[in-house]
Amino acid sequence: MTAGTPASPPAPVARPSLFRRMTVVGVGLIGGSLGLAAKRAGLVERVIGVSRSRGNRETALRRGLVDEIRDELEGGLEEADLVVLATPVATIVDLLPEVARCLRPGALVTDVGSVKAPIAAAGDAALPDGRFVAGHPIAGKEHSGPEVADPDLFVGAPCILTATARTRPEAVERIAALWRGVGGVVLPLEAAWHDDLFASVSHLPHLAAFALMDAVLTMEQDGHRLRFAGGGLRDFTRVAASDPVMWRDIFLMNRDMVLKSLAEYRVALDRLERAIREGRGDHLASLLARARTARKESNHRP
Amino acid sequence: MTAGTPASPPAPVARPSLFRRMTVVGVGLIGGSLGLAAKRAGLVERVIGVSRSRGNRETALRRGLVDEIRDELEGGLEEADLVVLATPVATIVDLLPEVARCLRPGALVTDVGSVKAPIAAAGDAALPDGRFVAGHPIAGKEHSGPEVADPDLFVGAPCILTATARTRPEAVERIAALWRGVGGVVLPLEAAWHDDLFASVSHLPHLAAFALMDAVLTMEQDGHRLRFAGGGLRDFTRVAASDPVMWRDIFLMNRDMVLKSLAEYRVALDRLERAIREGRGDHLASLLARARTARKESNHRP
Repeated sequence: MTAGTPASPPAPVARPSLFRRMTVVGVGLIGGSLGLAAKRAGLVERVIGVSRSRGNRETALRRGLVDEIRDELEGGLEEADLVVLATPVATIVDLLPEVARCLRPGALVTDVGSVKAPIAAAGDAALPDGRFVAGHPIAGKEHSGPEVADPDLFVGAPCILTATARTRPEAVERIAALWRGVGGVVLPLEAAWHDDLFASVSHLPHLAAFALMDAVLTMEQDGHRLRFAGGGLRDFTRVAASDPVMWRDIFLMNRDMVLKSLAEYRVALDRLERAIREGRGDHLASLLARARTARKESNHRP
Repeated sequence: MTAGTPASPPAPVARPSLFRRMTVVGVGLIGGSLGLAAKRAGLVERVIGVSRSRGNRETALRRGLVDEIRDELEGGLEEADLVVLATPVATIVDLLPEVARCLRPGALVTDVGSVKAPIAAAGDAALPDGRFVAGHPIAGKEHSGPEVADPDLFVGAPCILTATARTRPEAVERIAALWRGVGGVVLPLEAAWHDDLFASVSHLPHLAAFALMDAVLTMEQDGHRLRFAGGGLRDFTRVAASDPVMWRDIFLMNRDMVLKSLAEYRVALDRLERAIREGRGDHLASLLARARTARKESNHRP
């Protein structure tokens, strides 16, 4: 193209899809949204959902998140050339050996779990030829489940891939193309570093929110406190409405990093408490101002 | 009106305003919004703003939050029949004696501070004839200042009034009429109980959010953590963008109740930490589910 000449939009071409049959195990918010988004973008020819929940199976089919739905893994995998594991993280680890057993030769497996090192290791063990690509799209909503699945969920979302020494580069490239195709921004990250990072920016905040609700419930008297939750509690604890099983798994699977972040959090609480107890107004204001500045800066990050 | 006959809108009547001149000391989000809302609703004839900040004075005048603006208390009070103190809480206590000195006979004084017992006591001391009515509208936004003042801020908002044994009932009634007139839902509450309640549902969540930002900053490496703040941190710490001076004052003025809530919070963190450390999945899930249920219930409160 000559410099200065505006590009005309490319003519539509009958592009072959990236995958023929994508099987999504777990059709909640993330799995369901990926099914819908990948179909809409023409990245897959057919989506097969697998769910143990009858309600989720019905919703996924009714909303067209998947083309067909199964209640068991077996039968959902034979024809898949891509399997996406979108269940709570402990279930991902549990499913990997069975997925590997039922998988077609050459098919790829990926996941969307919020903890990466143990899953990447389990994937390498189950598929030693490097066909498992551990992933984590940073996308979510206050509510979970297939009812709120949304084909635009991944637009602009960082989609982290944590390949290991064993993962095949061409497998990483195809999974990256899938996330880019639904609007995500692919970011490679080392699995252990991912788990350290997300312990602080995601797991700890969720833990802090659950604890806050728990503390207020303990202090509750005749419903008066929850009645005034709009004073701040409600904003802070939006995430405390998240799925308890999903978060139980994350906290347990990323235990060491979560406990490390929690220890830092206690130090920060101590620091603020001491300033309040001792009435050190200037010091307290400077601690609060530091937090505010960082909060504002975080708005300008992707 | 006969039953079944639709009501025709009342003919406009030249209703006397509730107050002739309302002086608002502090023209930030709350003070500025009240000025605008009260003028729009015809509750006051004229609004005089007082602010020590030149930027806020200019914004308040430009946006029409007030009809005239002063940089000093004196001169802004002589003609007022209502004075609203809308500064950080320590400043409210500091200003009360001077306000009492400059006040017209019969004029009323109220405030919008987030801590009530010390302010109600200071108001009674400054105006022993019961013309001070301590108040707290439960309204706010992520950002503060006159730029974001909004005449609809108080629509549906609980507006708490904490009268003391000394407060004149007719003064309470007129302040209640002001808040109702701008759309608020007036709720009488005992001042000490207000401070206990808001320590848990407002002050503690803000403290927890400031501490969360502080902890992540301490762990920060080359900006990587804030880069992924969208993973949860950003949602939880919306309130950590609040004005540091305002929150310093609240934490120090409500110190005992804040420390009591913080102690309960530590117990809740301990409980979750122990379940994670010991890998007690069922117990952990039940703690998380309890928090989730309460969080959902709080959505159905006013």
